[in-house]
Amino acid sequence: MLISKLGEFGLIERFNKRIKLDASVVRGSGDDCAVLAFNKNQFQLFTCDMIVEGVDFMAKTDPYLVGRKAIAVSISDIASCAGTPRHCVVSLGLPRKSKVAFVDRLVSGMLDMARKYKINIVGGDLSRADKLVIDVSMLGIVEKKKLALRNQAKIGDIIFVTGSLGGSIRGKHLKFSPRLKEARQLTKRFKLHAMIDISDGLTQDLGHILEQSKVGAVIYENLIPVSRDARDIKEALYMGEDFELLFTLSRADAKKLLRDRSGTYKPIGEIVERIYGLELVNKHSGKKILKIKGYQHFK
Amino acid sequence: MLISKLGEFGLIERFNKRIKLDASVVRGSGDDCAVLAFNKNQFQLFTCDMIVEGVDFMAKTDPYLVGRKAIAVSISDIASCAGTPRHCVVSLGLPRKSKVAFVDRLVSGMLDMARKYKINIVGGDLSRADKLVIDVSMLGIVEKKKLALRNQAKIGDIIFVTGSLGGSIRGKHLKFSPRLKEARQLTKRFKLHAMIDISDGLTQDLGHILEQSKVGAVIYENLIPVSRDARDIKEALYMGEDFELLFTLSRADAKKLLRDRSGTYKPIGEIVERIYGLELVNKHSGKKILKIKGYQHFK
Repeated sequence: MLISKLGEFGLIERFNKRIKLDASVVRGSGDDCAVLAFNKNQFQLFTCDMIVEGVDFMAKTDPYLVGRKAIAVSISDIASCAGTPRHCVVSLGLPRKSKVAFVDRLVSGMLDMARKYKINIVGGDLSRADKLVIDVSMLGIVEKKKLALRNQAKIGDIIFVTGSLGGSIRGKHLKFSPRLKEARQLTKRFKLHAMIDISDGLTQDLGHILEQSKVGAVIYENLIPVSRDARDIKEALYMGEDFELLFTLSRADAKKLLRDRSGTYKPIGEIVERIYGLELVNKHSGKKILKIKGYQHFK
Repeated sequence: MLISKLGEFGLIERFNKRIKLDASVVRGSGDDCAVLAFNKNQFQLFTCDMIVEGVDFMAKTDPYLVGRKAIAVSISDIASCAGTPRHCVVSLGLPRKSKVAFVDRLVSGMLDMARKYKINIVGGDLSRADKLVIDVSMLGIVEKKKLALRNQAKIGDIIFVTGSLGGSIRGKHLKFSPRLKEARQLTKRFKLHAMIDISDGLTQDLGHILEQSKVGAVIYENLIPVSRDARDIKEALYMGEDFELLFTLSRADAKKLLRDRSGTYKPIGEIVERIYGLELVNKHSGKKILKIKGYQHFK
């Protein structure tokens, strides 16, 4: 049987079933970051992301943007757990024929991103590879009380997203700013119920929250902020690589947030009982059950 | 200019010069692990290693051994800082046509190694890649007093290695047991001055200790434990992937260790003033200045 039959998430699930963890692991695989015991008031967050030429960027992509993205995707994972990134290590697989100027620009992208978000690049590994591959592992910290995971959405919660969705492939996936500041603002004022970053598409990532929180959701088509870069609503629902935050708040907290009239946080729906699955409401055509799908490797 | 002109270490140096670190980093890039502030008595260790098909293993290598190696190389890094491995994350780049049975066996190799050394696999990332690539990032802890680095070799120290060297390509590089137990035994009894694991060849890795400790060394050809798998002394000096420990002890500690008559720890020479560089003594032909060389990517 080929892995394409199981798909990315089937394969991950198969892997995770075999893993045993000790008590120092608060949460292992299955969220944006692993959560580890750290000190009295804080957890440590640990995440890794691999980006590959031909999949996450093209051979002709400006290496500065590739380096930038390699760091940014991990920051986004730390942000979606409401943490602060601290340190990272970088593994680089470089083709033998790479030019020094190319690597310099790649490194500039990484360093600028790391500097902007106050992250120490503390080590790495260099290897030869046929195509460029970069893996970044990042450590962060989070106050125990503020930790946001995928499994705490509650029935009645309002679902929000930051920014706008869809069409990221036309540029945003290489230039996005991880929503670290926004996550921090939110956790200062509210108890976030569930949070994830949208990397594989709104429905698929909302699907992770629903599955892990054992709930359902209704989202409203006219409320979904579709990016100017998106060709249609479908790209906003399924395309992925938006690196926006998707989170749920109690109704009381949602009301407070809505009173701000901030352009950044947009309500798109609400959490309902699990039995309803994921429904999309269109004001003309009515309710429709959405198939949860989005970007998957190997498909 | 191509990166092959700078070579792996030239490229790393070029990268490192541009990095700035804050005070929470005890030691950044340049050792087997990064060393981070953790708690009153312990530091945290952080390391990553990428292994790539066609470079670190072949397409036809048993995937169980590939998975095993992916975890083992990082354990070896933690061991050479005298630490205890705790958690790791795994990024996997898999060809689309991979079979589930292949991935299952790869994962078995990783899980068995992790279980044996009591390491939690707490997360990961899955991506598509043309050739198999695995990156493992590992966290460990080390008592502050026991931390062993590359930069503390002292003139007069005796240089030791564990096990035997050379010919690793004929099997050992896929089957080695990281020297975690040995590192722990050593740190219990002695204050290790400098330590590194031999991944790129004895002279090259000893070269790292010499450079960072600002010292020289004399090693004795007849004392170097040449593996049965090695064709000649050159493979023991230069081949790499031995994953043995190379460390230095004060003369007093060295005497104590030698009194054990353990077969595991073999003295191979001593630390001298920097001006002497790295000398190899052959009892027939006398002294010879060794060129520091070993495995390098991109060459």
